[in-house]
Amino acid sequence: MWTRCVRTGPWRRVTAGSCARSLCSSTRTPGGLEPLLRLCVDRYYISPGRANTERFRRGVRCSYGPLGTELRRNLLEQWWHSVSRSSAQVFGIESVSGSGDGAGAGAGAGPLRTVESELLTRLLERQELTKEQLVREALLLLQRSPAARADLLQGALEQFVPALELVNRKLPFGLAEAGPCFQPSDGSGCPAEVTQTSLVWFCSPRTSSQWLDHWTRQRLRWWRKFALSPSHFSSSEVPSEELIEAASRGVRIQYSFPWGPETLETLWSRGDAELLHTHQGVRSKLQCRDGKKSIPHVVSVTGNLDRGVMAFLSNSLQQLKREDSKQKLLQRTVLKLHPVLTPVKVALNISRGATVELRQVCEGLLQEFQEAKISAWPGYLETLPPSMEQLNAKYDEMGVLFTVVISENTLESGLLQVRSRDTTIKETMHVSEIRKFLSRYISVADTN
Amino acid sequence: MWTRCVRTGPWRRVTAGSCARSLCSSTRTPGGLEPLLRLCVDRYYISPGRANTERFRRGVRCSYGPLGTELRRNLLEQWWHSVSRSSAQVFGIESVSGSGDGAGAGAGAGPLRTVESELLTRLLERQELTKEQLVREALLLLQRSPAARADLLQGALEQFVPALELVNRKLPFGLAEAGPCFQPSDGSGCPAEVTQTSLVWFCSPRTSSQWLDHWTRQRLRWWRKFALSPSHFSSSEVPSEELIEAASRGVRIQYSFPWGPETLETLWSRGDAELLHTHQGVRSKLQCRDGKKSIPHVVSVTGNLDRGVMAFLSNSLQQLKREDSKQKLLQRTVLKLHPVLTPVKVALNISRGATVELRQVCEGLLQEFQEAKISAWPGYLETLPPSMEQLNAKYDEMGVLFTVVISENTLESGLLQVRSRDTTIKETMHVSEIRKFLSRYISVADTN
Repeated sequence: MWTRCVRTGPWRRVTAGSCARSLCSSTRTPGGLEPLLRLCVDRYYISPGRANTERFRRGVRCSYGPLGTELRRNLLEQWWHSVSRSSAQVFGIESVSGSGDGAGAGAGAGPLRTVESELLTRLLERQELTKEQLVREALLLLQRSPAARADLLQGALEQFVPALELVNRKLPFGLAEAGPCFQPSDGSGCPAEVTQTSLVWFCSPRTSSQWLDHWTRQRLRWWRKFALSPSHFSSSEVPSEELIEAASRGVRIQYSFPWGPETLETLWSRGDAELLHTHQGVRSKLQCRDGKKSIPHVVSVTGNLDRGVMAFLSNSLQQLKREDSKQKLLQRTVLKLHPVLTPVKVALNISRGATVELRQVCEGLLQEFQEAKISAWPGYLETLPPSMEQLNAKYDEMGVLFTVVISENTLESGLLQVRSRDTTIKETMHVSEIRKFLSRYISVADTN
Repeated sequence: MWTRCVRTGPWRRVTAGSCARSLCSSTRTPGGLEPLLRLCVDRYYISPGRANTERFRRGVRCSYGPLGTELRRNLLEQWWHSVSRSSAQVFGIESVSGSGDGAGAGAGAGPLRTVESELLTRLLERQELTKEQLVREALLLLQRSPAARADLLQGALEQFVPALELVNRKLPFGLAEAGPCFQPSDGSGCPAEVTQTSLVWFCSPRTSSQWLDHWTRQRLRWWRKFALSPSHFSSSEVPSEELIEAASRGVRIQYSFPWGPETLETLWSRGDAELLHTHQGVRSKLQCRDGKKSIPHVVSVTGNLDRGVMAFLSNSLQQLKREDSKQKLLQRTVLKLHPVLTPVKVALNISRGATVELRQVCEGLLQEFQEAKISAWPGYLETLPPSMEQLNAKYDEMGVLFTVVISENTLESGLLQVRSRDTTIKETMHVSEIRKFLSRYISVADTN
């Protein structure tokens, strides 16, 4: 039996039975941007405001709500594991924005600087200075101001020497980092903050092209692993006329958004010129132990975390439609984020009844989930709970993987009801089994 | 029996038996800063270079090596769990550096701006402009440049309205965030980057002082949980003459470094003025559901992650001394970081023998550890392994919790040797038990 919630419009299955998916036709977000943005704001993925949604759309860092923050954290965590688990020889580093520690500071400083605006304003307003004095002083202030980095490559190149010692001068190895960077504007004077993920891979010159292929495959597999429609993620060789100066080859990993393809990650085979430049050409410091004493080549793998978040949100949004028996068109909106990525794994709710006791059960479960690092949503705290229909519609839009309902029955028999976001099927389970069930479900999804 | 490695100077117990600790007198780092800095550079906690170690000492963000990066990640992870697990109603957010989304942008923008230096330089060098035109244009460019935030408070105040809706207008709740901020310089024109942790707690006006006490206790307990000498962490009320403008009360959590106390975290009971200001005094948007429709009061808990890293490194560094039978002074340097924080939980090494087979065992174990998220150090990859004495001395300085040695014997019997950093005792264990042993050891340390 299918029922429809008149107020909110979604349909769902209310009795257990065969899979809901087989009964309906599924379509990908047709409209594209607008429904996605509305859902992201309504369901606490991003903060409201036109400027903020515009940042989100452009793939630069925006202000995230609680769910977006958790999704972003999960994605970053997966990226770390993927690059560091892939090989014993990838090390995490943290470099400083335009470290300015002698070597290479100028080269990597990037075109942006963090200026104390009050100092500069006060300087500009000093009447007694001539124009020439003013210009000289302002340029000096600008030079002293720390650089805001444009990418994480330079930090990794600078850390190459101690890292080479760490691995006993043996190649290949990699340095990984994630953090904020600033992209220069296109002349408007308003640069944008992006969150970069960076793997800088050092290998012997003759293997650099193979490593570029290796990392392309590895990264594309990673993106697709979490996708509902993996085919929307693709890789393509950068045409020779678009190669950056240092690079002999490049590959882009892109996502086909409803409004067109955008680049999520770029891989370059960069040679050794930048490494040599950073270390002022002192070859002896850079040589590795491979008999030929060659200077390593660099393969860089640079991603945009915020655009990655948007790609997975866009990829996961499903609007499912079907006609009911009276030929009314019913619609259900679900954010089918991958179990590992989705910010809320389980929502805890209570049905009407002896509220105090039911809440105590929920609190016990919440703590159990928190200890097992399963993020749970305390739906039972809502003082004016909506109907189960409305709740399910809301949770589907939030991407909540499972909804648990504790009822009077739970107090007597220990049984509770678990609804799956992806199948809409409701199961009965014992309260002592739910944590293990969820842990297993998520870890199976992780290894697939 | 005690032996001494002549070359590196440390002493250690080489046969199993009673606890090594009982035989020696333990002293805290006497010299203070220098030995700590040297160890941090030598053991890949921070990058070399005078400017970098100076940043580290000042508690601003510096460039971290692989071990420092992992320690910092672990500490941040623990902070997240601690603030979000402490209550069902703490939500993570990500705000944008000086979001500039209408309301409050001016107030919270902070005194720093990210300027495109090339644009400004080109402007300053335009000969045809009069001084007045130049000043006007430069000020305009400065205004258009995005602000670099000085703290995370403003972002949380801006997100208060959607968050209030999320919790059904019910207090108390909190918004947590961690990220880079910029501290204005003391007039030198060179601001510093710090990594802040921020919990902004919204509660009813009459409970704000109690909440300040609650969070002080909770935070101090957290710092002390990971300490070898918990008494070096302390809290003290901010004297009334040092209160910031908005605050009615303040508390500082400090660490007694060998060179004096420094503040790790500051808690303020800030009233409602900043919240009202951010939302331009529109009280109806801010009211919560507690009968009296009051405006929430704000308690802020702001920490310095980088100084926290340094506090734990300083707290964990032990130089143990004893005289041997010939009255020679032996010294052992150990970084006794808490099992949860220490970057390397286990090092995998091989003794002399059939290298290929032994390496295969190591690789299998490494993968097992990585899957269980136990960070392991591939010591077996070293092509010119030093003696076990030297290795142990190095691992002790790195803070490696356990050292596993795979030998010919492992291939025959499945038995390997496990050495504990803290007791220096060596145990024999079956290869199938080691992962479980480590997981249990770390999780027991976590719950204590």
